[in-house]
Amino acid sequence: MLDMDKIFLISDIPGYTPQISRLMSMMNYARYTTFQSVQGLTTEQLDFTIDSTSNSIGSLLLHFAAVEYAYQLYTFEHRDLNEDEMKKWGAALDLGELGREQIKGNKLEYYIHILNEIRDKTYDLFKLKTDEWLYEEHEFWNQKTSNYYFMWFHVLEDEINHRGQIRWLRKRLPIDIRSGKD
Amino acid sequence: MLDMDKIFLISDIPGYTPQISRLMSMMNYARYTTFQSVQGLTTEQLDFTIDSTSNSIGSLLLHFAAVEYAYQLYTFEHRDLNEDEMKKWGAALDLGELGREQIKGNKLEYYIHILNEIRDKTYDLFKLKTDEWLYEEHEFWNQKTSNYYFMWFHVLEDEINHRGQIRWLRKRLPIDIRSGKD
Repeated sequence: MLDMDKIFLISDIPGYTPQISRLMSMMNYARYTTFQSVQGLTTEQLDFTIDSTSNSIGSLLLHFAAVEYAYQLYTFEHRDLNEDEMKKWGAALDLGELGREQIKGNKLEYYIHILNEIRDKTYDLFKLKTDEWLYEEHEFWNQKTSNYYFMWFHVLEDEINHRGQIRWLRKRLPIDIRSGKD
Repeated sequence: MLDMDKIFLISDIPGYTPQISRLMSMMNYARYTTFQSVQGLTTEQLDFTIDSTSNSIGSLLLHFAAVEYAYQLYTFEHRDLNEDEMKKWGAALDLGELGREQIKGNKLEYYIHILNEIRDKTYDLFKLKTDEWLYEEHEFWNQKTSNYYFMWFHVLEDEINHRGQIRWLRKRLPIDIRSGKD
């Protein structure tokens, strides 16, 4: 799905409708830069928190998967996470104290695997949808009208927002946990 | 241009072609959240740097305008900034040491005025363009093919990336320069 020859293009993707393709082009680019920003990080680096309210890079990575999962439920199943799903994803969704407690000790591959799994599911589901679906309007934040295009744009823009924080954090990893892998 | 009833919609905007409208919908949302993230900040807060390599919130705001200006030149005039333009925008484009030295002492209104001025220019220029233009392909980063749609998406995703850092910084403003305005 991540065609590196088309990574700087917003255009058609075989098997998907035109507007869904454009959205996916942006999602692909965002994910590509996320993976670039964490390349080579060790578990210790992924767990590092710079101060008492800081999220770790690892928890931000899991946050991307959790947000995407939540929007799958919201836009395809018209529901929020149930209790069981919240047990699994709550810490990654809410971050903060819970995230610092529960999300640690994982290798980079762990996060990448989950991110890919959730993304594959999204793209399977997009295959069944049309541009008309993307433009369906529903009440969303602040009782304002939104469409699925915007909601999925929000998923990628939230990732980009936190990618900015990942880059910031990576530059500030303490020397003693900075490995040669970069 | 910033229709608050449509801020969570990606759709048509009167006076612009359909795909340019979608791009502008995303640019509008990104800018709306940028302005939200800096609302009420004082000059001292806009100038604050958290460590020796940190950019200030003010310099990041000016960076958004500088990047947008650079992409106006690049995509509408097919050129880079000239020497005079670099004198004016260089610090905001490059940030770092130069940004910390040169970008300070300004009120929030100063940044907002420049951001609006540059944005208005972009939207005036978009009015003259079509979706065909948006999909024109040119060589871009790493000798790969890109289109104007992607290049302008990059402008807004760079803003979102740094907005993540602005939010991070804002939460860490020292108590003694935190005003009641928030």
